[in-house]
Amino acid sequence: MANSNKVPQKTVDGKRNSYRRYYARKKAPKKSTVLPPVEKEKVRISFLGGMNEIGKNMTLYEYKNDMFIVDCGLAFPTAELPGVDLVIPDFTHIINNQSRVRGIIITHGHEDHIGGLVYLLKQVNIPVYATKLTIGLIKGKLEEHGLLNRVKLVEIKPRDNITLGSFNIELIHVNHSIPDAVGLAIRCPAGIIIQTGDFKIDTTPVDGDMIDLPRFAEYGKKGVLALLSDSTNAERPGYTMSEKNVGESFELLFRKAKGRRIIVATFASNIHRVQQIIDVAQARGRKVAVIGRSLENLVKVGEELGYLNVPQNILVSIDTINSYTDDKLVIITTGSQGEPMSALTKIAFGDHRKVQISPNDYVIISATPIPGNEKMVGNVVNALMKRGVEVIYEKMYEVHASGHGCQEDLKLMMGLVKPKYFIPVHGEQKHLSKHAMLANAMGIPSDNIYIGDIGETVELTEDYIKKIGTVPSGDIYVDGLGVGDVGNIVLNDRKRLSKDGIIIVVATIDAHDGYVVSGPDIVSRGFVYVKDNEELMNMARDLACRVIDEQYDSRYHDWNNVKTKIRDELSRMMYEKTKRSPMILPIFMEI
Amino acid sequence: MANSNKVPQKTVDGKRNSYRRYYARKKAPKKSTVLPPVEKEKVRISFLGGMNEIGKNMTLYEYKNDMFIVDCGLAFPTAELPGVDLVIPDFTHIINNQSRVRGIIITHGHEDHIGGLVYLLKQVNIPVYATKLTIGLIKGKLEEHGLLNRVKLVEIKPRDNITLGSFNIELIHVNHSIPDAVGLAIRCPAGIIIQTGDFKIDTTPVDGDMIDLPRFAEYGKKGVLALLSDSTNAERPGYTMSEKNVGESFELLFRKAKGRRIIVATFASNIHRVQQIIDVAQARGRKVAVIGRSLENLVKVGEELGYLNVPQNILVSIDTINSYTDDKLVIITTGSQGEPMSALTKIAFGDHRKVQISPNDYVIISATPIPGNEKMVGNVVNALMKRGVEVIYEKMYEVHASGHGCQEDLKLMMGLVKPKYFIPVHGEQKHLSKHAMLANAMGIPSDNIYIGDIGETVELTEDYIKKIGTVPSGDIYVDGLGVGDVGNIVLNDRKRLSKDGIIIVVATIDAHDGYVVSGPDIVSRGFVYVKDNEELMNMARDLACRVIDEQYDSRYHDWNNVKTKIRDELSRMMYEKTKRSPMILPIFMEI
Repeated sequence: MANSNKVPQKTVDGKRNSYRRYYARKKAPKKSTVLPPVEKEKVRISFLGGMNEIGKNMTLYEYKNDMFIVDCGLAFPTAELPGVDLVIPDFTHIINNQSRVRGIIITHGHEDHIGGLVYLLKQVNIPVYATKLTIGLIKGKLEEHGLLNRVKLVEIKPRDNITLGSFNIELIHVNHSIPDAVGLAIRCPAGIIIQTGDFKIDTTPVDGDMIDLPRFAEYGKKGVLALLSDSTNAERPGYTMSEKNVGESFELLFRKAKGRRIIVATFASNIHRVQQIIDVAQARGRKVAVIGRSLENLVKVGEELGYLNVPQNILVSIDTINSYTDDKLVIITTGSQGEPMSALTKIAFGDHRKVQISPNDYVIISATPIPGNEKMVGNVVNALMKRGVEVIYEKMYEVHASGHGCQEDLKLMMGLVKPKYFIPVHGEQKHLSKHAMLANAMGIPSDNIYIGDIGETVELTEDYIKKIGTVPSGDIYVDGLGVGDVGNIVLNDRKRLSKDGIIIVVATIDAHDGYVVSGPDIVSRGFVYVKDNEELMNMARDLACRVIDEQYDSRYHDWNNVKTKIRDELSRMMYEKTKRSPMILPIFMEI
Repeated sequence: MANSNKVPQKTVDGKRNSYRRYYARKKAPKKSTVLPPVEKEKVRISFLGGMNEIGKNMTLYEYKNDMFIVDCGLAFPTAELPGVDLVIPDFTHIINNQSRVRGIIITHGHEDHIGGLVYLLKQVNIPVYATKLTIGLIKGKLEEHGLLNRVKLVEIKPRDNITLGSFNIELIHVNHSIPDAVGLAIRCPAGIIIQTGDFKIDTTPVDGDMIDLPRFAEYGKKGVLALLSDSTNAERPGYTMSEKNVGESFELLFRKAKGRRIIVATFASNIHRVQQIIDVAQARGRKVAVIGRSLENLVKVGEELGYLNVPQNILVSIDTINSYTDDKLVIITTGSQGEPMSALTKIAFGDHRKVQISPNDYVIISATPIPGNEKMVGNVVNALMKRGVEVIYEKMYEVHASGHGCQEDLKLMMGLVKPKYFIPVHGEQKHLSKHAMLANAMGIPSDNIYIGDIGETVELTEDYIKKIGTVPSGDIYVDGLGVGDVGNIVLNDRKRLSKDGIIIVVATIDAHDGYVVSGPDIVSRGFVYVKDNEELMNMARDLACRVIDEQYDSRYHDWNNVKTKIRDELSRMMYEKTKRSPMILPIFMEI
């Protein structure tokens, strides 16, 4: 029966079983002109930040003439960037395309996702979409920069949809270390893209609102073109601990503290952590005082917007703490990363105006040091212990839960979303690589996994994912009021100055005959303690005199040449005598 | 019967049961003069370094007129010390007492125990006692500093005894991450003091020579006045892993590497680690090339002195590596801490002259980041991964074993030595505190535990342990050839310069009439990129002109006053305009 059927049949391997018939059919439309193959719809993603680096997350989506941005964060400077206050993304590509940018969606209120926004909005006027708490935090920033009346802020809820040109985006609730965080389901004719945002799976979150896994699963069922997922904890096996465990630790530790005053240091943005501290304080009859501008702001915004439930009369001003006995007080403070200017550091080193430490204090550092901060946190712990204070830190108790999913969280997300393409984001190379390995182990073929780099633009269709180019990107330094005016020359000078200081050789020259009428004088800063090194300074002066003298003979006063010679010879001499390389700066004045 | 016995009997609580008889006995020697109580013998310990800090270990023992030193290390500078190369202890107290110092004993060859020695020996001529390998490493340093012929080096073996004045010291073999490490049993009429030195308990050490626990136990049986024990890993529960496990990991990983070239980064001083790498390379038919001056030196000294067993023809020069295929080569390199100038960092960033990285490389970082270095190590891992290299790092496999005992090691030592007094050493406050808690849990009363601080001198007798004073101590900075010539003024200048740079205001003035004949000119470095900020520079010049002009009216040319005014006003203006605080340096030349 099957053989008598003339309709071509596919075999298991997809080839037709009737070549003759197939051939005939293929030849049929011969007379019509050959149409170009229908092109699959394409969507493009540009990684403007947060890819292969920590902080300043920013992603740009592009479909035909429409673009929109996800997040606009900042990064904090490393030791390699002396004097720099903040690092923000390069906005050149956005500015060049601003007529096509339909808006920006912010996934949550952490600095690495909202910190660059005010700088962007100073240059580009686009509407901002975010959930209630995130909008509240953004408002504070806009106000500070005098932008509040100029910017369109649109408050949205999880499961809401936003239309931005040809894009339609649904917000999906996720768990993170700040409330009101969302992931995104981005739909356009090319397909559905899921960007998780920063997330963890917390089955017992403090606000009872678990990550909306069913929604992620529904999209997975519909078919997802690509998943962009948070790689921060991709190196850590297992599940991320629930925030609730931290509350249980607080209950235990507050009991252990007995009659002592309790000081808890935590991240300023972790509202649920603060809620848990307040709850346990309330249960144990303690008042709560808050120190640190960012924490005070959080408590204010959190309470106003209903994210923080503060019992009446529990909060007391830091100015009144001395009217409460130690056993009746909890102080919540910033500085859990040992930041030098933070309240906890000042308290530990006895420099805080309002909080004096005593052996009757009990300090809980409710955080894990971010890589690079271990030493600073250690210094604060040591300083506190030297003053006889008991300190709970690091892994002694479960006093911190990460806001980012570990390997099992990440695999669960991948298993629900079942994307065709996988793009690990939000991490350094080592995190992205590890996350890619997890995806591969989950059955996503290597060719369908894309490890990107900052500045790359990738194009996705049903048929391929590939890099199609790069866009301007990188680090823009904010130093004081200056945005972008500190570049490599200035930074290299700063680094050099910090290593061995500067020697200035100054002389006044008669422009007519080329004779030195005053100087050369030698002034140094950051090099050696001059009073103990007068001989060395005299040698430098003699050297400069000699070099200047030599040029008289040449009859041709090439002062730039003299400067270069002084720089070279003095540099060499100083290295020989001291094995140091100060910056040498000759300044000649003419009269 | 018992009642008829007239001899006073003690009751269970130690009180005599016959008061009358007791009273009569006590009154008996009434006629003789009252002798002063026999004073217990005293020994003193001064903590000249390594106490409540990391690095630069140095301890001074003192009995009557005799003193001797244990160790003389260095510390590496933190980010707070720009331009400083090394930090060494303050030797003032040693120099002031040099006639009483009988010698110095070095417990092992790590920099934090021997690195300050050459600087000490330049100032004080005392004999140095150490084991064979340690002597070998010290010799290299003395040679470098031209001291070899001037210093008396005495090679000693474990269980040897050294007499230094009234002190008699026995060396006791311990396990550590460098061979030939020893602890000390210090005997003087005041009692026996055990100083463990850096140690771990390795029941399967690579050289088969387990820590001499029986000897520690014998002293414990005799009665030990005080134990000074290594606190580095006091925060870590459990036992420290055996170095042998690392070798087993190498066997597994070398097999996994298959046809790839293997690069292993490790600490330059870990001879047993290098031995294990060589052994596994030999077994798998690979040649070994070594990069990094300190590693090359170690291999040379280790082989010469018989601590490293190198099969014939296995070592090849780094210059010839290109004549071997990837599957026939292992490169051992320094840089396991991500140090910016190290070979591994250069290799990772493509800056090494002799080793070019490729995806056919397999890198094993055989170390754990020292707190503060996590970020640097991460950068190296990221850079390697970006070049497609597989990297084994941190806790992925057991590729590193600590050289310091964890809590169970420490408790075992305490249980064997059973000291009357316990002094945790070699650690920051948090390590010392934790170690003290362990001692307390082991039954040593709090009053018998002493947590010291750098610069303190404690006195011990059978009756007490107490602080009796302080001695000069602290950090001496070595910068290039300068020892101690970089102080707080210079460092503060460097830090300031690195933050916001410098603005130099230079003018030439006629000394007779006070008029400016040239300038004022503005020169800046590390502040802003001048070409983009000409207006700002012009404003600075105008300000300087105005301040100078104002003083003409005063008729009294107080140039210092003018300088101060320029400094203040320009500083204020720059802060207003840029929110930065560059150093302002006015230089006036007179003709």
